Amino acid sequence: MVAPGNWEMEKGMPPSRPAHLLHDVPLPAAAVFEAPLTHNLAWMQRFAEGHGAKLAPHGKTTMAPALFRRQLEAGAWGITLATAVQTVTAHAHGVDRVLMANQLVGRPNMTLVADAIEAGLEYYCVVDGVDNVRDLGAFFADRELTLNVLIELGVDGGRCGCRNAAQVDALVAEIARQPALALVGIEGYEGMIAGGDEAAAVRAYGERLVETVRTLQASDVLQREAPIVTASGSKWFDLIAETFDRAELREHYTPVLRPGCYVVHDHKLYAGAMEAIKARDPGLEGELRPALEVFAHVQSLPEPGLAIIALGKRDIGHEPDLPLPLRRYPREAGGTVSVDVSGWRTTHIMDQHAFLEIPEHADIAVGDVLAFGTSHPCLTFDKWRRVLCVDEALAVKEVMTTHF
Amino acid sequence: MVAPGNWEMEKGMPPSRPAHLLHDVPLPAAAVFEAPLTHNLAWMQRFAEGHGAKLAPHGKTTMAPALFRRQLEAGAWGITLATAVQTVTAHAHGVDRVLMANQLVGRPNMTLVADAIEAGLEYYCVVDGVDNVRDLGAFFADRELTLNVLIELGVDGGRCGCRNAAQVDALVAEIARQPALALVGIEGYEGMIAGGDEAAAVRAYGERLVETVRTLQASDVLQREAPIVTASGSKWFDLIAETFDRAELREHYTPVLRPGCYVVHDHKLYAGAMEAIKARDPGLEGELRPALEVFAHVQSLPEPGLAIIALGKRDIGHEPDLPLPLRRYPREAGGTVSVDVSGWRTTHIMDQHAFLEIPEHADIAVGDVLAFGTSHPCLTFDKWRRVLCVDEALAVKEVMTTHF
Repeated sequence: MVAPGNWEMEKGMPPSRPAHLLHDVPLPAAAVFEAPLTHNLAWMQRFAEGHGAKLAPHGKTTMAPALFRRQLEAGAWGITLATAVQTVTAHAHGVDRVLMANQLVGRPNMTLVADAIEAGLEYYCVVDGVDNVRDLGAFFADRELTLNVLIELGVDGGRCGCRNAAQVDALVAEIARQPALALVGIEGYEGMIAGGDEAAAVRAYGERLVETVRTLQASDVLQREAPIVTASGSKWFDLIAETFDRAELREHYTPVLRPGCYVVHDHKLYAGAMEAIKARDPGLEGELRPALEVFAHVQSLPEPGLAIIALGKRDIGHEPDLPLPLRRYPREAGGTVSVDVSGWRTTHIMDQHAFLEIPEHADIAVGDVLAFGTSHPCLTFDKWRRVLCVDEALAVKEVMTTHF
Repeated sequence: MVAPGNWEMEKGMPPSRPAHLLHDVPLPAAAVFEAPLTHNLAWMQRFAEGHGAKLAPHGKTTMAPALFRRQLEAGAWGITLATAVQTVTAHAHGVDRVLMANQLVGRPNMTLVADAIEAGLEYYCVVDGVDNVRDLGAFFADRELTLNVLIELGVDGGRCGCRNAAQVDALVAEIARQPALALVGIEGYEGMIAGGDEAAAVRAYGERLVETVRTLQASDVLQREAPIVTASGSKWFDLIAETFDRAELREHYTPVLRPGCYVVHDHKLYAGAMEAIKARDPGLEGELRPALEVFAHVQSLPEPGLAIIALGKRDIGHEPDLPLPLRRYPREAGGTVSVDVSGWRTTHIMDQHAFLEIPEHADIAVGDVLAFGTSHPCLTFDKWRRVLCVDEALAVKEVMTTHF
């Protein structure tokens, strides 16, 4: 068996350019609308700056270097990432400052990061355990490099991070014994807080981060002119920003916000979070807009009231909500007209198929295209190696590669 | 911003060869053990042949051309796929016969398939609607190509496929009006049958496929010497095979089985299905063995009884069951020793983290590696662009690319 050539088709990829999403691209395909994307980039940058904070968008959401570039061009301080491989991938695509909001574990991962630091990457990771601090200290001393670390604060029953001051003190002491490590600040993630008055708990957590960094600063153990204080996912970034701002961190510290999903927002989970943010601050100017949709064909109409869509778990996120039907593009209209179908409902999804409950006499045909929104964009991006940036007329403006 | 070079790291990829999974590869990484893989390839081929059936393994499980090649070398008749892009990807990697167990919808998808047929691909797709038949007939007539189609039979409340004989008759009549279409058989998928005596319903469904193809053959509407009759996912392949065998299809028809998950099997869902198959046939020789595992580091031990693993929804399937901890490789042993941890339990998974409930005084350290099994392999393969084929000592024998 010999492959007929080097030509390689990938799903969601236009076979040629210029391309129109509905005329040229084999569906299903994932599309990012350029107008709301551009709006979101500017909106969040302005929000962070308005609160005296730097923005380091979480890049794990999209893993799309073309979006990292737009985020940095919009003014982002750096890109947040979750793993060593994500870090070196971003660096290979021109990102010069990475905040890895995770522990760096395992020799091969440390080697990747050390090589990137040697090649000029400004890099930060978090620590929450003495053993890991010793490992990192020994490894980076061997490599004759300095590793910037932030102590992670966690919450009881949460994910990683120190639960109390005694754990922080033990870490500070161990870091001080490791000449290769530079303690440069404090990191947290408020997204693990659940139950009770969550907003109050998020504010209190933000204040704990502030108090901890001030205590460390007073102890003279921080090796950075303006130590970093960072938190915030995509749900509570307003409360973290306000807490940092009220504490006037901007003067002597580097407060950093790390939302990721804002870049394309969504149609349900973060749409709801945005409503809550607006309710907390009625004076807030503007808001994030959904930019990510997945387009797929009606594949079969086997029974009244049921449409099978050529769209599955391989193509779109299905947690916490199943894909949300938005618009139908009738096949006979050639993609020039669309009809609102937001009243329809996805009832089930398999690897390659979605089940749509539709009105019994719905105007729908096999070959029609449906546009779907998502609830939580992270688990849609990772289904695609190519995401199409489109304009409002569905012309493909840019093919964005992802690197999961 | 200029990327420093063409070098590109991907997750799960060894930085050099030869490589050892635990010493050289940045974890997490997905591994296929070669011994059970080779065993499974032979076992299923022998099973199909023993029942007088051809094997067209469902390739959507892995989308790994290296595994397609092994399946074909083991004797498979062709590869089953789910979409046009999967089809042309397989063809570009040397697969010459594809059974697309799905409807072909949309001009760009039809174009991909037509180009592949022109380039020599032997291709079959399924139809279940008159409109789609007309579209295909017109498109392939324009291209001056013949398209082989199978009529799909479905079940009430199921997915695609004709629900009754009247729908089949309407399709047969429409296909007869389309000179570009060749009706060559019948297709079904018994995996949608649920509730009641499922085994009996699967047998009855298999018999319905047999009766339908015989009726069509008697009507002289099938344009293939030995018409195709095909069904079977990975759960009920034994009952479909027996039903086809008992009907003595092998003499005048081409019975085709299409299991996909068998190639690497799993540690729970299909392990359970295998137990049921053995119970239905106590004389069955041998059985499938789990071959796919994902390896990841212990990242944090923030509280007694809780380990955070650097492994998330981006790395491993979590449906219908969360990842199954199998073995722990203590860091100080350098990967040479492993300890059974199958009593531990994953309690939660996020995009990049898994939460493990462990005994309060468990022997575990940050930097230890855990091997996890899965329940349903399809949604683990699609998390990886590279899957490592390893031997029992965890030496990397082959890097297998996937093409989702």
